[in-house]
Amino acid sequence: MEPKVDSSNLSPCTKKMEKEKKLKPPKELPSGFEDRQEKELLIRDFVISNIKEVMIKYGFQYLETPSFEYTESIGKFLPDKDRPGEGVFSFKDEDKWISLRYDLTAPLARFVAKNFNEIPKPFKRYQLGTVWRNEKPGPGRYREFLQFDADYVGTKNLQADAELCVLISEILEKCGLDKVDYTVKISSRKITSKLFEKLKINSKEQISITLRALDKVDRLGWSEVKKLLGEGRKDKSGDYTKGANLNNDQIKIIETTLNSKNTDSEDLIEIIKIFEAYNFKNYKFDPSIIRGLEYYTGPIFEVNLNFDVKNLKGQTIQFGSIGGGGRYDKLVSNFGNLDFPATGISIGIDRLVFALMQKKDFKFKALKPVMICVFDKNNTKKYVEILNKLRSSNIRSEIYPGDGNLKKQMEYANKIASPCVIFYGDDEIKKEEVKLRNLKTGEESSTKIENLLNEIKKYI
Amino acid sequence: MEPKVDSSNLSPCTKKMEKEKKLKPPKELPSGFEDRQEKELLIRDFVISNIKEVMIKYGFQYLETPSFEYTESIGKFLPDKDRPGEGVFSFKDEDKWISLRYDLTAPLARFVAKNFNEIPKPFKRYQLGTVWRNEKPGPGRYREFLQFDADYVGTKNLQADAELCVLISEILEKCGLDKVDYTVKISSRKITSKLFEKLKINSKEQISITLRALDKVDRLGWSEVKKLLGEGRKDKSGDYTKGANLNNDQIKIIETTLNSKNTDSEDLIEIIKIFEAYNFKNYKFDPSIIRGLEYYTGPIFEVNLNFDVKNLKGQTIQFGSIGGGGRYDKLVSNFGNLDFPATGISIGIDRLVFALMQKKDFKFKALKPVMICVFDKNNTKKYVEILNKLRSSNIRSEIYPGDGNLKKQMEYANKIASPCVIFYGDDEIKKEEVKLRNLKTGEESSTKIENLLNEIKKYI
Repeated sequence: MEPKVDSSNLSPCTKKMEKEKKLKPPKELPSGFEDRQEKELLIRDFVISNIKEVMIKYGFQYLETPSFEYTESIGKFLPDKDRPGEGVFSFKDEDKWISLRYDLTAPLARFVAKNFNEIPKPFKRYQLGTVWRNEKPGPGRYREFLQFDADYVGTKNLQADAELCVLISEILEKCGLDKVDYTVKISSRKITSKLFEKLKINSKEQISITLRALDKVDRLGWSEVKKLLGEGRKDKSGDYTKGANLNNDQIKIIETTLNSKNTDSEDLIEIIKIFEAYNFKNYKFDPSIIRGLEYYTGPIFEVNLNFDVKNLKGQTIQFGSIGGGGRYDKLVSNFGNLDFPATGISIGIDRLVFALMQKKDFKFKALKPVMICVFDKNNTKKYVEILNKLRSSNIRSEIYPGDGNLKKQMEYANKIASPCVIFYGDDEIKKEEVKLRNLKTGEESSTKIENLLNEIKKYI
Repeated sequence: MEPKVDSSNLSPCTKKMEKEKKLKPPKELPSGFEDRQEKELLIRDFVISNIKEVMIKYGFQYLETPSFEYTESIGKFLPDKDRPGEGVFSFKDEDKWISLRYDLTAPLARFVAKNFNEIPKPFKRYQLGTVWRNEKPGPGRYREFLQFDADYVGTKNLQADAELCVLISEILEKCGLDKVDYTVKISSRKITSKLFEKLKINSKEQISITLRALDKVDRLGWSEVKKLLGEGRKDKSGDYTKGANLNNDQIKIIETTLNSKNTDSEDLIEIIKIFEAYNFKNYKFDPSIIRGLEYYTGPIFEVNLNFDVKNLKGQTIQFGSIGGGGRYDKLVSNFGNLDFPATGISIGIDRLVFALMQKKDFKFKALKPVMICVFDKNNTKKYVEILNKLRSSNIRSEIYPGDGNLKKQMEYANKIASPCVIFYGDDEIKKEEVKLRNLKTGEESSTKIENLLNEIKKYI
C-alpha cells in the first residue's frame, strides 16, 4: 500500500528528503476527516443520551446495521447524485461490490426486506451511526457524519408523521433549546406533484433536477435557482450545472406557488389536526421546503435553528437545517413485492453539536482532574490512599502519571487545567494532612485527611 | 457500480431471472458484517457508559479520531500481517491512499505527532470506535469491531501500566462481573527478549513468526505451536503456515521457560508492588501470555473470562481474552524524533457484550412499550391525553401506529411484546376510565384515569 519510490535516479539531497519522508509518516488527516476532542464529545454524548431517552419513551426499537452493505442493495438510492456509485466509498469484495453506507434509510429498507417475517408491522426503529460520502475533497466538505434516524415503516397513518415532528422537538428541548430557538417547517410533496402535473412537467430527469434546484432556494436565493430551473447555472468556481430547461411561465408559476402561505394539501390539514391533539404548536407551514431527495411522496419536514451560528472563521452564517425528513411510500418496496409505506426523520448530530456549542446560554461543565503530586515513589501507597478516597466519591482525579520533577508536574497540571493540586509530602504524611493548591489563583489550604472531601469541594 | 450484464446471449428464462435479480436488490449482508438489535445494543450502551464513567474518574481525556487515515500514517503498524496493506480497507483518494483504521493505536500515534505542542505530557486518552479488518470472508470472521482503548503516552512510569490493570477490573466489576469471573494475566516482553538473546534468535522475521506462534498456545496447544516454531504447520483446511525454523533444543527451552511460574523480570516486580498499593489482587503472572503484536517492549496484559461461554451453535467454547495490551515504547517515535514511551489497553466491546449476555446471573431488563388501541381516529386527542400521561412519567408507550383493525392491533402488540394494552373506547371515555389488559395472561382491570399511573405499575 505504501508508495514505492525508485530512488536510483534521484539526487543525494532528494534522496535524503525521500528518506526523511519515509521515516516520518504524514501527521495530517485526509481532507474531510477530523479529530474530535473532549468538550465536543461530551456534548455529543449528552445529545445522544437525550435522543435515546426520548426514543425509548416513544416505543421505537433500537437497531444498528453495519457500516458496509452490498452496493447493489443501497446503490440505487444515493441522494443528490444522478449516477449510482458516485459519492460512495466502494470496494470490490470477492466478486461483488460493497459500499460504506451513505445514509441510514437504504440500510433500513434492506433490513426490513431481510427480516420481513420477524418484525412488527408497522416497524418503528431508530438508529445512530456514521455515514460516509465520498465527496471531492475541499475545505468545509466533510466526508463522515454522525446521523440519527427515526422511521415508521409499514403505515400510512399520518399520526406517524406528526409524531416525528413532536419527538424531534422533545429531543431539542431536552438538549436545552427553547421554543424560540427552533422551528419545524412542514410542507408536502403532494404540492409539487400537483404543480408538476399542472405545468405538464413529467420527464423524470426534469422533475429530479427541478427538485434539487428548489431545495437550494435557502442557500442561493430565487434569482440563482431560477437559472437552475431554466438553462443552467455557472457557480463561482466556474463549474456549470445543467438546468431543468423549464420555460419562463413555468418558472413564474412555481415561484408564486412556493411563496404562498395557503395550505390546501389534504395530508397537511390532517397532520395539523394531530398536532393540535398533541398541543404541538412550534411548526410552520412553508411550501418552499423541498428536501432534495426524489423518493419523498407526502409530508416533508425540516428543522431550522433560529439563533446565530458562527463558522470556524468567526463569521455569522445561515446555518440552515439540523435535520428533516418526510414520507417515502415507495422506497422499501424496491426490495420486492412489499407494500411498505414509510416516513422518517434525521438529525445531523455533528451539526447540532456545533450549533449547541455556540449557543450563548448553553452551559456544559466538563470536570477536570485533581492531580496528586509525586515526591517519592516509595510513598505510592500513601498517594493511592488519597486517590481512592477521591475516586470513591466520584471525583475525577489522578496521581501525576509521568517521570518528571515538581516543575514538570506543575506544567502537566496546568496543561490538564487541574482545578486543584494535592501535596502529600513527608511533612504532611507525618501530620496526616494534605495541602491543596489552586494553580490559577494561588489559593492554598491545608486540611486533615478526614476533612479532605469537604475541603476539596471549595476547589472543584 | 452495479454489475452490468450483457443479456443478448442469455435464454429467455435466464433473462427473466436476471430481470428479477435486478428488480430485487440483495437482502443479505456481505460476510463478516451484522445487524444488531435492541437487547445487544442496550447491554452495549450499559458497558460503554460504565467505561466512560471510569475513564472520567481516572482523569483520561476523551478523544475520537476519524475512520479514515492516510495509509502511509498507519500502514506500517498492521498487526498479525507481514505485508502492510493486507487486511485493511483502502481507497485511492486523489493521489494518495487512505485506509479505514484497523486499530486505535496507530491513529493515536498520528494524533500525538500532529498535536505534540498542545497536548499534556504525559498524555492520557481513551477512545471508543469501530475498527475494520479486511479479512478473507468466511464463517465467524467479523470484519468490523467496536473497540475501547485507554493509553498513556509519554511516560515510562510503571504506575501507568499498573493502573491500566486496575481500571479494566473496575470496568468489568461495574458491568456486573465478580472477582472470580475474570483474571488479569500479566507478563513482560523482557522475558521473551532475554530468551531470544540467550537462544541467539535475532532475525527480525524469526522473532516475529515466533511471537505470533506463541500467541496461539491457548487456542492450538503446545504440540501444534511447536510445529509453527519448527518447520511449519498445515491447518485443518489444508493451508500451510511457514514456521520459525527453530531447532528442537531452542523450542524445548522456550516451552520450559514459558511454563515456569517464577517472575524474575524487574518491571513485573515493580508493577506487583504498585498493585499492592492499590490493594489489587485479581491478577496472575503467566509467562505464556504473549500478545501477537511485535511492537510491545515491556509489561503485557491479557484479561480472560472464567465462566462458560457458548458459541452461536450452543457449544461451550474456549472464549479467550476480551482485552489486553501492554507497553510499546517505540511506536509513537516512528512519527519523528519524538521519544514517547507508551502503554495501553484495549477491550473488544462486542466480545464482552456477547459474553455478558450469556452470563447466568446477568440481569438486564429492556422495557417494552405499553400500547394504546385506536378505535376511532376522531378520538386521537383522547388517546394522546393518555399517552402524555404515561410518557411524562417516563413510561415507554405508544398509540398503535398503523392502519389496521383491532385484530391487527393485537398482532402488533404481541409482536412488540407489549406488557399491557390500553382500551379507551367510547364507553370508557364516557366513564373517564381505561381498561388495561395483559395479552399473555389475559389479566384485565379497569381504572379511573387519575389512578392509571398506579394501576399500570402492576403490569409493567
